[in-house]
Amino acid sequence: MKKMTVLTGITTSGTPHLGNYVGAIRPAIEASRDENVNSYYFLADFHSLIKCHDPARIHQSRLEVAATWLALGLDTNKSVFYCQSDIPEIPELTWILTCMTAKGLMNRAHAYKAAVQENEDNGSPDPDKGITMGLYSYPILMAADILMFNANIVPVGKDQTQHLEMTRDIAQRFNHHFGEHFVLPEARVDESTAVLTGLDGRKMSKSYNNYIPLFAPEKNLRKLIMKITTNSQAPEEPKETEGCALFEMFRAFATPEQVADMRARFAAGIGWGYVKQDLFEVVNAQLAEPRDKYAELMQNPEYIEKVLKEGAEKARAYSRPFLDRIRASVGIKTLGA
Amino acid sequence: MKKMTVLTGITTSGTPHLGNYVGAIRPAIEASRDENVNSYYFLADFHSLIKCHDPARIHQSRLEVAATWLALGLDTNKSVFYCQSDIPEIPELTWILTCMTAKGLMNRAHAYKAAVQENEDNGSPDPDKGITMGLYSYPILMAADILMFNANIVPVGKDQTQHLEMTRDIAQRFNHHFGEHFVLPEARVDESTAVLTGLDGRKMSKSYNNYIPLFAPEKNLRKLIMKITTNSQAPEEPKETEGCALFEMFRAFATPEQVADMRARFAAGIGWGYVKQDLFEVVNAQLAEPRDKYAELMQNPEYIEKVLKEGAEKARAYSRPFLDRIRASVGIKTLGA
Repeated sequence: MKKMTVLTGITTSGTPHLGNYVGAIRPAIEASRDENVNSYYFLADFHSLIKCHDPARIHQSRLEVAATWLALGLDTNKSVFYCQSDIPEIPELTWILTCMTAKGLMNRAHAYKAAVQENEDNGSPDPDKGITMGLYSYPILMAADILMFNANIVPVGKDQTQHLEMTRDIAQRFNHHFGEHFVLPEARVDESTAVLTGLDGRKMSKSYNNYIPLFAPEKNLRKLIMKITTNSQAPEEPKETEGCALFEMFRAFATPEQVADMRARFAAGIGWGYVKQDLFEVVNAQLAEPRDKYAELMQNPEYIEKVLKEGAEKARAYSRPFLDRIRASVGIKTLGA
Repeated sequence: MKKMTVLTGITTSGTPHLGNYVGAIRPAIEASRDENVNSYYFLADFHSLIKCHDPARIHQSRLEVAATWLALGLDTNKSVFYCQSDIPEIPELTWILTCMTAKGLMNRAHAYKAAVQENEDNGSPDPDKGITMGLYSYPILMAADILMFNANIVPVGKDQTQHLEMTRDIAQRFNHHFGEHFVLPEARVDESTAVLTGLDGRKMSKSYNNYIPLFAPEKNLRKLIMKITTNSQAPEEPKETEGCALFEMFRAFATPEQVADMRARFAAGIGWGYVKQDLFEVVNAQLAEPRDKYAELMQNPEYIEKVLKEGAEKARAYSRPFLDRIRASVGIKTLGA
């Protein structure tokens, strides 16, 4: 039986936080241990150029994100871990797909439509005000990321399922004209992954600036956990676990026994301060070792570069000959061959 | 004094005809002999994918166009002659520029606006009906073609001057954000180049199917010239040279002495058949040798491939390090360097 290929793109803007870890990074790294799949993980740095025009931040984020995944134990022998910008076949395929993509398809993209709506809400006479071609056409780049490696499965958040449909559309149109070259990928939306609440009670997110950095130093980690908003119930009152941000976060890090025990203490009445202390303990227990590893890796960017370059070579062992076939199928092939 | 760089893109759809030769190819090849410029010539095969989805035709056209330019004496030692699709830096730069291009700029492109107008004229409810992202975004690819080699001058037809303005816009925006990396290119529109009339009295053009192939066999060349539409003036009547398609074509191939002589014969009265016979002689005299060379080259596509690959290596000696600087300027650089 042929192994399935699972491909995961990792955004490289900003510093990874606990919400990213629990919702995306940890499950992805666990999945990479599955011997029955080919796992591809890539830093989507060409995508990050769309919104971020600060070179220092792009550079720093590439470093931090790569160090994070390596520190958390991504096995680069079992998986292919690379930087998008190290694969020249991807932008080339992007152009080839651009020629087979209907403009109408891009008009329907959620991100673009939201930007147009915002302009309309602000009374702008130009619906495209401030919108770049990067924002408008990035579903094609994303299609190239996926189709370049004939991925079968792409784990995505719910807000990304439309992009997968677009990728399938583009691939189908190409296959129809030029032969069955591309696998039609499927989105995998995992509804069960935990979503953490941030310091202010809203979903933990970079945009709300309410997050706890994944590798905050131990002292800061404790301080930030102590700052999580709670209600004003007295310590001895029995407490609801349902909808309690502290309990959710505890559950995301503790063993089932620890969770059962905490649930009992909630029912019996426990002060928020004690919950926070225990929460800090379980989070810290899980992160202490990778945090040290992360600090060490951040001191050694040359090593990270080397790992990424090795990953790119593995990826290109696939993408190079495959792109040659795609080029030939549209008519760009060696003269006289 | 630093040499100017002149860059010329060559479309690779269809077979070159006499109109292409007189209006574009011959002056470009003459210009390449100027020792004071760096000349770049490239086959724009990524562009040809926009409209042509016939792989055999793309392949054949790349071969014919390359053979044509070589047969006509393009000096590949003095100039850089390459295929766009052999320069992976071009699609990569295209994406980087895409992130810095306003969507509103593309909305204003003539080719796109004409396509929308056609949909409106046909009463289509969707103004973007049948329009691909290739058609919509190719001014960005064209900007990358030009900016990749920091061309100072781009000889273009009048209908292409808008693309040069767009290239300048995109370059300026990039330079403003990331430093002065790109030269702002200038269009060179040569009003003096001859425009030939086709067999039916309209401008000679592939789209009108009224053309004489540049390297038609001698017999066909004569036959086609004999078919050129003329008026019904009697042989002995004095004739106007002004606006006479035969005279224009004669002038595009003959020496000044031959032209003066023909002018006198027009004034004295000359039968169209004699004009056509003389026209055939001067055209054939200029094309006989390159036509043989062309036939020979078409038998040796491996040689053409080799010449193009050598050209690509010369081009990449510039584009590779330059793209590295561009990447670094937006934040994509070696980790730890």
